[in-house]
Amino acid sequence: MSVLIVGSTALDSIKTPKAENPRLLGGSASHAAVAASFFRPVRLVGVVGDDFPRRYFQLYKRHRIDLEGLQILPGKTFHWSGEYELNMNNRRTLLTELGVFETFTPTLPKRHQDSPFVLLANIAPALQHHVLNQMQRPKFIAADTMDLWLNIALPEVLQLLKRLDAFVLNDSEAHQLTKEDNVFAALKKIHRLGPKYVVIKKGSHGSILSSPQGFFICPAYPLHKIVDPTGAGDAFIGAMMGYLATAKGPVDKQIRRSMIYGSVVASFCCEGFGLQRTTRIKRWHIDQRVKELERLTQW
Amino acid sequence: MSVLIVGSTALDSIKTPKAENPRLLGGSASHAAVAASFFRPVRLVGVVGDDFPRRYFQLYKRHRIDLEGLQILPGKTFHWSGEYELNMNNRRTLLTELGVFETFTPTLPKRHQDSPFVLLANIAPALQHHVLNQMQRPKFIAADTMDLWLNIALPEVLQLLKRLDAFVLNDSEAHQLTKEDNVFAALKKIHRLGPKYVVIKKGSHGSILSSPQGFFICPAYPLHKIVDPTGAGDAFIGAMMGYLATAKGPVDKQIRRSMIYGSVVASFCCEGFGLQRTTRIKRWHIDQRVKELERLTQW
Repeated sequence: MSVLIVGSTALDSIKTPKAENPRLLGGSASHAAVAASFFRPVRLVGVVGDDFPRRYFQLYKRHRIDLEGLQILPGKTFHWSGEYELNMNNRRTLLTELGVFETFTPTLPKRHQDSPFVLLANIAPALQHHVLNQMQRPKFIAADTMDLWLNIALPEVLQLLKRLDAFVLNDSEAHQLTKEDNVFAALKKIHRLGPKYVVIKKGSHGSILSSPQGFFICPAYPLHKIVDPTGAGDAFIGAMMGYLATAKGPVDKQIRRSMIYGSVVASFCCEGFGLQRTTRIKRWHIDQRVKELERLTQW
Repeated sequence: MSVLIVGSTALDSIKTPKAENPRLLGGSASHAAVAASFFRPVRLVGVVGDDFPRRYFQLYKRHRIDLEGLQILPGKTFHWSGEYELNMNNRRTLLTELGVFETFTPTLPKRHQDSPFVLLANIAPALQHHVLNQMQRPKFIAADTMDLWLNIALPEVLQLLKRLDAFVLNDSEAHQLTKEDNVFAALKKIHRLGPKYVVIKKGSHGSILSSPQGFFICPAYPLHKIVDPTGAGDAFIGAMMGYLATAKGPVDKQIRRSMIYGSVVASFCCEGFGLQRTTRIKRWHIDQRVKELERLTQW
């Protein structure tokens, strides 16, 4: 079963204390699509400008990503530029040029409308709604968001929560949404806003799931060095959705394992700039780290 | 096999945004001793003044804690007063009155000198050394510390590390000691300073072990509400040592499980002021949460 992914497709210029990399392939949909592609065919919905490098089209294609839903419009591709502090935990945005993204309306190709797994990666909630409005009863819908939308489009986010199976957000966004410092207290509150499954990402501290089967404490894969964490959260939810689309049996039985796969693909993402490391691994690299995580958490 | 515990025995006056509790039983040795007492007989080494409330002697005795090594000196018991911020993560010290602690020298009763398990709970490293100097070849030595000793007595701490089997510290102390932001990188460095086992505590994010068998990612028990985290780290290492002293087979095989017990007893500690909650539980309450943690982490 294929996974439909809508989100941003961007060029990222990323500065860390050690290096600077201009115009890498980035955006929530790019990271999520490559991560999901290790498990299932992916249909990408997004927009790029006519300056979008040919090599990035080729990168998508190497990952068997269906680009029928990727619009190419005259103008510039969305460009984001950011800088990380020494400890890699804090980043600041240096520049945001929306380009063709400013007027983007995600229109689904007809044959994408029956996709069973839908990932609404981080993008304006109005666009996430717009995609859902075109879908025919998907089996499983998950969404991500960001602080910006909680600030400027909270009513749309709250409406969206009622339409989701799973909602994934990071701990600071969970705090922003619920005013709860405690992650378990926050999970319970978000649960009540609609989604059956809520996942709070805590970066290198792992993630927590709240579901009808209770909580799940998911470890992060241990990394000694982080090169660039940009896109790790998108890789996490992308791999989760890819794994869920490939797994047999009800989601309830698979969602914990899907988070483990999410953690592992996110760990590869952090080991290189942009998608540089993630695009160099194979499925067996992922399976190896999943086995290692098993050993690292047994008692 | 009994556990010898040396550390501070204090009266804690604790203020949180919700309540204020004066002159609770506190101190690293008190929290560690009560935590260890659920598993094994404990020998406490510390000092109190002649103002030490009779009910706290009784509390120790209810937990079968051997008080032969607890000195009672004329003067005031060590008194610490602190205040927690709204999110319970940050606290500031309002007052420290050393009292009889100022001139304390831990002298071990003869029959304590052959204790197989020794916990050097948080106290000046010179005193930790002094206790070790009186011991006859203990089977397992663990120690805790705090930022203060890393600031004012680093050479003594570094000397101590060479004499330990296990060293337990929190993430900010690990950063202070190694200048590493990454917890896995910090663990490797501390390892090289001496101890075979190094545990970094991350509060509600759990803890990480580095050992010759590799890393272990230990979850924290999920709490929706934290009443008072004072002493949770002492409870963690106290329960670890109590469990290790009771467990059959080599430490290598038991240390991961001992950390799980540490997490659970620390979770009870956080649910009440001072020792109020921890002194109201039985061993089966602990076993129940250990089973629950098993369910919360399976995939």
